[in-house]
Amino acid sequence: MPIDSSTRQWLARQLNRNKLMISKAISNHWLLNYQSKDGPADLMAAVIVTIMLIPQSLAYALLAGLPPQAGLYASILPLGAYALFGSSRFLAVGPVAVVSLMTAAAVSQIAIPGTAEYWGASLVLAAASGLILLLMAILRLGWIANYLSHPVISGFITASAILIAVSQLKHLLGIQAQGHNLIDLGTDIFQNLETTNTYTLLLGTASLGVLFWTRKGLKTFLMTLQSPALLTDLLTKAGPVLVVVTTTLAVLFADLETKGVQIVGHIPQGLPALTLPNLNLQLWKELLPAAILISLIGFVESISVAQTLAAKRRQRITPDKELLGLGSANLASAISGGFPVTGGFSRSVVNFDAGARTPLAGILTAAAIALAAILLTPWFYHLPKATLAATIIVAVVALIDLSALKRTWNYSRADFTAMAATILTVLLVGVEAGVITGVLLSILLFLRQTSKPHVAEVGLVPGTEHFRNVDRHRVETLETVINVRVDESLYFANTRFLEDLIYDKVLQQPQTKDVVLVCAAINHIDASALESLEELTRRLFDAGVQLHLSEVKGPVMDRLKQSAFLDNLTGKVFLSQFQAWQALKLKSENDRLPDNINSTAG
Amino acid sequence: MPIDSSTRQWLARQLNRNKLMISKAISNHWLLNYQSKDGPADLMAAVIVTIMLIPQSLAYALLAGLPPQAGLYASILPLGAYALFGSSRFLAVGPVAVVSLMTAAAVSQIAIPGTAEYWGASLVLAAASGLILLLMAILRLGWIANYLSHPVISGFITASAILIAVSQLKHLLGIQAQGHNLIDLGTDIFQNLETTNTYTLLLGTASLGVLFWTRKGLKTFLMTLQSPALLTDLLTKAGPVLVVVTTTLAVLFADLETKGVQIVGHIPQGLPALTLPNLNLQLWKELLPAAILISLIGFVESISVAQTLAAKRRQRITPDKELLGLGSANLASAISGGFPVTGGFSRSVVNFDAGARTPLAGILTAAAIALAAILLTPWFYHLPKATLAATIIVAVVALIDLSALKRTWNYSRADFTAMAATILTVLLVGVEAGVITGVLLSILLFLRQTSKPHVAEVGLVPGTEHFRNVDRHRVETLETVINVRVDESLYFANTRFLEDLIYDKVLQQPQTKDVVLVCAAINHIDASALESLEELTRRLFDAGVQLHLSEVKGPVMDRLKQSAFLDNLTGKVFLSQFQAWQALKLKSENDRLPDNINSTAG
Repeated sequence: MPIDSSTRQWLARQLNRNKLMISKAISNHWLLNYQSKDGPADLMAAVIVTIMLIPQSLAYALLAGLPPQAGLYASILPLGAYALFGSSRFLAVGPVAVVSLMTAAAVSQIAIPGTAEYWGASLVLAAASGLILLLMAILRLGWIANYLSHPVISGFITASAILIAVSQLKHLLGIQAQGHNLIDLGTDIFQNLETTNTYTLLLGTASLGVLFWTRKGLKTFLMTLQSPALLTDLLTKAGPVLVVVTTTLAVLFADLETKGVQIVGHIPQGLPALTLPNLNLQLWKELLPAAILISLIGFVESISVAQTLAAKRRQRITPDKELLGLGSANLASAISGGFPVTGGFSRSVVNFDAGARTPLAGILTAAAIALAAILLTPWFYHLPKATLAATIIVAVVALIDLSALKRTWNYSRADFTAMAATILTVLLVGVEAGVITGVLLSILLFLRQTSKPHVAEVGLVPGTEHFRNVDRHRVETLETVINVRVDESLYFANTRFLEDLIYDKVLQQPQTKDVVLVCAAINHIDASALESLEELTRRLFDAGVQLHLSEVKGPVMDRLKQSAFLDNLTGKVFLSQFQAWQALKLKSENDRLPDNINSTAG
Repeated sequence: MPIDSSTRQWLARQLNRNKLMISKAISNHWLLNYQSKDGPADLMAAVIVTIMLIPQSLAYALLAGLPPQAGLYASILPLGAYALFGSSRFLAVGPVAVVSLMTAAAVSQIAIPGTAEYWGASLVLAAASGLILLLMAILRLGWIANYLSHPVISGFITASAILIAVSQLKHLLGIQAQGHNLIDLGTDIFQNLETTNTYTLLLGTASLGVLFWTRKGLKTFLMTLQSPALLTDLLTKAGPVLVVVTTTLAVLFADLETKGVQIVGHIPQGLPALTLPNLNLQLWKELLPAAILISLIGFVESISVAQTLAAKRRQRITPDKELLGLGSANLASAISGGFPVTGGFSRSVVNFDAGARTPLAGILTAAAIALAAILLTPWFYHLPKATLAATIIVAVVALIDLSALKRTWNYSRADFTAMAATILTVLLVGVEAGVITGVLLSILLFLRQTSKPHVAEVGLVPGTEHFRNVDRHRVETLETVINVRVDESLYFANTRFLEDLIYDKVLQQPQTKDVVLVCAAINHIDASALESLEELTRRLFDAGVQLHLSEVKGPVMDRLKQSAFLDNLTGKVFLSQFQAWQALKLKSENDRLPDNINSTAG
């Protein structure tokens, strides 16, 4: 097909526009405008986040069913990629609990945890979700995330957190247990309860206790000692490091490994090798649905944290740029031995509170984790898995928000239904089924609600030109005219309801000659509603009644003129409801006159 | 759990209410109030419908992949069941083209056409769809059918009709061809084209020609002869019978069977034996999705015909009773050797035009078909399948409405997209995929549209208490106040859009101190939108801006009071936008005064 000159000009304009946008984006990039006075603050934030991130990244790798180093690897390149391409100044990217759980649920359908195939599939999952996020960025599809309603997300996170906490019990008890829902997990744990290892249980519960105390009690304790705020903060954040160090030393010196305590074991020292993910098409196809869900959940989690933090500095988050940042972070994870990552809530808040000013904090964190991978890994050999499990449990318990159930119940039964269904499906079936159930149910419930719009018969407020609901106000009505106001746009799911309602009103008032549809609140009439209005016109005509419209909005009227509706309308279109009233009052008075007088008058 | 007395009373009341409703329904039943003067009209209608139904029922059985007698059986008991339980006085139930196609598509996934298993599975499909319809009646789920938008239904019927017409080409050509979409069918027909049987082709095209002519030309021709209206009507309707008789005699006397013309062959004489359908759970499970789609499509087709006809007599259709009627018709079909049935469009119009007054016409039609099954079946032995195929093609070609595509394109791009996607998916993939694609797409497009609601910044029309869009009218505004009117209910899919839009407006006007959200057009705020408003309040507060509401509707306000939103609102809730204007104008004037004057004034 030859390209004509106007198309060529259009293409040139588009190209030019994109060039301009890209050059503007580059010249505005934080890295090229970095001010050295922000350096110390960014470095301080990076140190605090690193202290928090090292045990978390090891733990989340464990949760995802991967070797511990995968957690470190997922916290190096992805952080750099996000810092370069993302739009938030404070978001701390890396492995997070919910996405790690989703990774485990998806990949263990395909491979056995602990095998090379399993890790390979996790890389494919990260690559697929990276590409999906980039595609969403290019096609500007960030709005899709809006279809995850708040109650569904909140229910999903609460249920996932419960599932994660229960899944970690096996490490606290030192037993074997598999499963991706409460039923399977519970059965397995119960059956293997007798194989509990006492040393593991002691280490685990002690870690759990100390971690909870540093979260809740330590801060109050230090404040009574009047310790400086920064020190208090640092000590509270260092709680997990303290536990990691103490329990590792305990295993080492009490030789608990030989007594059956599961430890992290050998972690290869050094940086990850860069590799391309497996390009087996079948594998990609199998992981695609999970990758879509992980992308969406990850994006929603990130963007809400990022927006909250940006607002505190009167800054803006660009959802499409956020997609770009998260997409490249996941691709970076896929080529450097990681697994799917996203922006973590608590981690980002810590980064913000610690005073991070620019994304350089993220790059410095990545460098610090890289150093840890090179230097510290031998020290993790004796780290008990029970400690990591305790770290996870403490982190996810903070995500459980059962009070939201009650709040939602009080506010809206429909939202509560969607939320409860999401929670129950996640717990009893699994994470993927849970998200899908929640989304579909919330959409259906929304449609159900708009499918019965508020409809009021209105009459004239005496002495004015205003019309009000006849059931609530003292208003004038005409015997042969029904004035109906609909408070919703008309579309396929509510149009039959309206058609039946008006038709019923007419059948109940056999003296009716005219029906006026007051369209002041109708922003849109879709093709189904248009046909339904045509059908209503015909049905009313068969019953000897004319249909009129009043107060049709400009855009709606423009659309109606594109159709044959106005040609077939038996009545008129009135600019205002008061004009309709006057005209139909005159008509009904004329109709009541005897024929001969009528003919002279008309 | 013991039942307390209030529950017992409630149960007793419910039971009593149901008893009353049932006894009222029985005493109002048409059969107990039958007036003998309606008898002749009902009988006449029954005769005309029977003449039309006999070739159609044989043909649709063929289309469904079943032996011809299944079509007769599906036109006996089901008609009686519908007459007793349905709500339409004119609907003629039986095998119809689209549902027969869907039956073939579903059952041939499970069994080979022509086998006993195939017929058995069709019975299960009828039973399952009967039970689904009854369940929908009991749970009052008739509204679910509203989620099939008109463009999707219209596109589905057009595409199915094309598919059916193409699928019958094999019978016109006397060749073999399989497939449930255009690609498979087309390939098969093209590959077997050389095996075309000339005699079959001649019979088929001749039948087709005569049938089209009786539809279009005959009526005009008879009217020029000034034949009486009733005779004209009868002759036009008898066209198919004429073709059936002529081609059967041609096969018989020219011995075309030995020349390769496919004929109907032996049909067992007599009424169907009553049997219970196969109760194999696996089979039911496999057919369930198809049964759901068949129930919905059948219900939608029936109810729209029934409503159109009822309106012509100023009568009402009760959707739930309609479900009951169609459900029992399908169960009756399932126990008497039939296949899924529903209300047919052309057949019902014929019934109505022929003067049917009550459902007795349906019972008489059933009796006439039963007589045909007992007496006439030997006469169908030499009936060529090509004639039946021609009957089907003529019937479905009338369903193809490509002009709807153009109409819909002109009126609404979103509706056109859903329609075109439905047509293409039906043609290229199959009927089930087509319905599902259409429904999901139309819901997504609707959500997409409401996800960007119309939002206007408004100002005061000078000298009035009215507020209008600042972009369209000359209005007063206050420098430190933004008044925003949203023309849509707030829910999960549009709430983030609104949050961002308002926040952006505030960032663009840094002198802003107050934002007023004018809620006059907001009928509902769901839990997601509530959280979003809370978040917006916080974000604006962090930016030094107060959020106010005005003109909140009663029900919305009641809901807000159930939540903590009003406690955390930084601004006020004003009854009218004019009150908000006055209060904020005063506030901005006070703010502008020097501090010492302000303190004396305040």
